[in-house]
Amino acid sequence: MTHSVFFKLSYPKNSLEEKLFFEAVDTLITIPDIVNFQCVNQTSMKNDFDYGIIMEFNTQKDYEYYANHPLHSHFVQNHWIPSVEKFMELDYETIN
Amino acid sequence: MTHSVFFKLSYPKNSLEEKLFFEAVDTLITIPDIVNFQCVNQTSMKNDFDYGIIMEFNTQKDYEYYANHPLHSHFVQNHWIPSVEKFMELDYETIN
Repeated sequence: MTHSVFFKLSYPKNSLEEKLFFEAVDTLITIPDIVNFQCVNQTSMKNDFDYGIIMEFNTQKDYEYYANHPLHSHFVQNHWIPSVEKFMELDYETIN
Repeated sequence: MTHSVFFKLSYPKNSLEEKLFFEAVDTLITIPDIVNFQCVNQTSMKNDFDYGIIMEFNTQKDYEYYANHPLHSHFVQNHWIPSVEKFMELDYETIN
């Protein structure tokens, strides 16, 4: 399954705060069993989001391990909540 | 770049109308230069969308060729507009 979140930061584009936020995002990659972790620029004018974080997991259990991992909880409390103005989560699996 | 749209249909799940809608979606695959076309089940409870269509293009020009292609226009007029209750488009590119 793919877990993704699209978001808008409360900081100006190219600011130091934005740079530090993405450095914190990078710490998440060390959590085991994440596949194809990527940060993206969201470019459609038809929504309000500037960025996305997209990652895959081979099993639901791997996703739950990530979601409950202390590094993830620390990131959410100390970086995500203070930095993100608006967001939307999307999880999906290919239809066979 | 990746082009994606997440949506909710105005038909019941597993209805004939839904099946016919996805058959119409499948006609889009014949438009040239689409890469990794996939239909997905959207599984997060944190948004209202049930499905997504995700595809990649090697260039912006390839995307515009798809967006302006008669098969795409026909699909939008005859299947998308009558069938989709709510949707959101997201386009993105990996940050290097």
